[in-house]
Amino acid sequence: MELTQSLQCLQPSYIREILAVAGDPNTISLAGGLPAEQSFPMPIFQSIMSQLANDSSLFQYGPTQGYAPLLDYCDQHFSLSPTDQSLVTTGSQQGLDLIARAYLNPSDGIVMEAPSYLGAVQVFELAQARIIQVDQTSDGPDLTQLEQCFAQHSPKLFYAVPDFHNPTGVCWSLAVRKQVAQLCRRYDVVLIEDAPYRELRFAGEMLPMVSELCPEQAIVLRSFSKYASPGIRLGVITGESHYIHPLITLKQASDLHSSLPMQALLLGLLTHDHFPQHLQAIRALYESRYKILASAIAEYLPDSCSAWPIEGGMFLWLILPTCDVNTLAKTLLKNGVAVVPSSVFYPAHMEGSYSALRLNFTNAEPEALVKAVSRMASALAGEV
Amino acid sequence: MELTQSLQCLQPSYIREILAVAGDPNTISLAGGLPAEQSFPMPIFQSIMSQLANDSSLFQYGPTQGYAPLLDYCDQHFSLSPTDQSLVTTGSQQGLDLIARAYLNPSDGIVMEAPSYLGAVQVFELAQARIIQVDQTSDGPDLTQLEQCFAQHSPKLFYAVPDFHNPTGVCWSLAVRKQVAQLCRRYDVVLIEDAPYRELRFAGEMLPMVSELCPEQAIVLRSFSKYASPGIRLGVITGESHYIHPLITLKQASDLHSSLPMQALLLGLLTHDHFPQHLQAIRALYESRYKILASAIAEYLPDSCSAWPIEGGMFLWLILPTCDVNTLAKTLLKNGVAVVPSSVFYPAHMEGSYSALRLNFTNAEPEALVKAVSRMASALAGEV
Repeated sequence: MELTQSLQCLQPSYIREILAVAGDPNTISLAGGLPAEQSFPMPIFQSIMSQLANDSSLFQYGPTQGYAPLLDYCDQHFSLSPTDQSLVTTGSQQGLDLIARAYLNPSDGIVMEAPSYLGAVQVFELAQARIIQVDQTSDGPDLTQLEQCFAQHSPKLFYAVPDFHNPTGVCWSLAVRKQVAQLCRRYDVVLIEDAPYRELRFAGEMLPMVSELCPEQAIVLRSFSKYASPGIRLGVITGESHYIHPLITLKQASDLHSSLPMQALLLGLLTHDHFPQHLQAIRALYESRYKILASAIAEYLPDSCSAWPIEGGMFLWLILPTCDVNTLAKTLLKNGVAVVPSSVFYPAHMEGSYSALRLNFTNAEPEALVKAVSRMASALAGEV
Repeated sequence: MELTQSLQCLQPSYIREILAVAGDPNTISLAGGLPAEQSFPMPIFQSIMSQLANDSSLFQYGPTQGYAPLLDYCDQHFSLSPTDQSLVTTGSQQGLDLIARAYLNPSDGIVMEAPSYLGAVQVFELAQARIIQVDQTSDGPDLTQLEQCFAQHSPKLFYAVPDFHNPTGVCWSLAVRKQVAQLCRRYDVVLIEDAPYRELRFAGEMLPMVSELCPEQAIVLRSFSKYASPGIRLGVITGESHYIHPLITLKQASDLHSSLPMQALLLGLLTHDHFPQHLQAIRALYESRYKILASAIAEYLPDSCSAWPIEGGMFLWLILPTCDVNTLAKTLLKNGVAVVPSSVFYPAHMEGSYSALRLNFTNAEPEALVKAVSRMASALAGEV
């Protein structure tokens, strides 16, 4: 049976292919985007889970928008205005998909940072949108390019990850945030602010969300995968209700609602007395792993390789001398290290402007991180 | 921000509107499609839930296709062939949406029974497909119409609910099943067999699924909402792997995967020693409620109202003398009974061929069922 035109456009995920190979026990994988399993709040989950099954109403059909007490929590915790609404989604990935399906007709323009999150590229390609790229610099998108792009292409949306961007780890400066908010207002572009890593800051100061600087012009995606659990598949979209309401109608047709017991479990965690300590423990764990990786890079790799410094998140972006990164990634895999080459993070027909590798540091033990870098050093030196 | 053309086509759900009003405590609702909360297997869930939180791997990202042990269970329990595949979905509703997005370009033809399940109509309208109707008779679709329709419109898909159809409760006869399978083969139409109510048979004999009679020409949707729990949002799609594989790619972009702890919970239930008794208890409960409703109808309503007899499922289809069913439903609501009028179950621009009401009997207590019918009798007699 012939596939729809939009599905024919969808590329299979290169990362998933790498991850399949990376399953080899002799391979150290820095390729995934997985949180550390040891960081999951299992004792808290245990105490909540045993209570959930006392409430049969959680196992009945529920409201499409989400579990009411969780929506109340979002209203308060995210300081939503009375004209805002929240929608609980089956992971932030569903949030992205709903936005694309609700607002992007084929050939509608959407601006993305380049490189950009692959799961977002996938949904925008699936919507057959016109993807326009703006270079990511070390403190956010290139603003000259961004304004030109807004002026020239009249895009509908600008998709961005301002806090600890995937794959570069970049955190936008306050000045960039303010200017992007202004540009979105001036050119009437709606910002899709994707903030899955925002809570994973382990250094520097928390900056305002870009959407706080242009709230009437923004939709925010928050994920609970990075500090609660990815397996429970929950995220939340917030924004002015005229943006959110159509997404609720669409979600009704997509999956009726997200798992109700999982929403109650999540709320139990978020409001648990030990939640602040849990969050602090994750940040400390990730900071220590990041420092180990960064030190190993400084120690083992040649000076021509440089890592962009980061203040949080899950990824380190390693810039290399210009080379064929796909071939390099394959060589590294033969040498027992799985990484993701920069080429993967650009839409299908576009070329990366520099050679780099994305290294995940949250899901490998300290010794494995060091060993991985030493193996990379050997491969880069052509010693193998 | 302007909505996409496809979302502009999507009608808000009339049933959801009715349900909102039906929340009034003085209203008896036979309008929803909710299973009885008291039928949920809470003791079994309790014992499983407390164990789940011992396994942190269930809270990590998981495979898009589904939790491997649950997929193994599906392989065995549904007797899948080696060329078949399963895909776990966030409820059967997501299964429908994935099929529509993968296989229906705008104006592709899809045949449905008329009346038909509203959630399916929604996703096919969202895909901007060309929906073609075939009348539902008391033992399945009108076969002469169906063949004409296949010959004339060359549809890609035929969506059907052969076991205890929503809204009519009809269960296709064996002869109809065989002939539909033949027609699908002859005209190269892929059957989408939606089977959410199949396990809810409380009378008569289990018949083969239509897809078993034309396996190379069918995709099957199974729901766990009706005999496990709707709140956990799990269903499974099965079929030859060339049908299923594109749906896995699409699901990756849609929500990565369905909740892993919920999949483990479901598997725990399905393989639990007491599961057969649980299933038997639901069937007995629903049979008793159906009989109470049917008796009350025979006792209180005029002979001009006739209910189609059923052998399972959740709905009774009450045929009325020709009237304006929307006005009638509103009158009934004023008299404290919420029901869904037949008009709702036809695509937007089509007219129902007879006047009827869908009555759900699974989610009301016996006394409420009798009271609801007596209130209907008063309203129909114009006594109020």
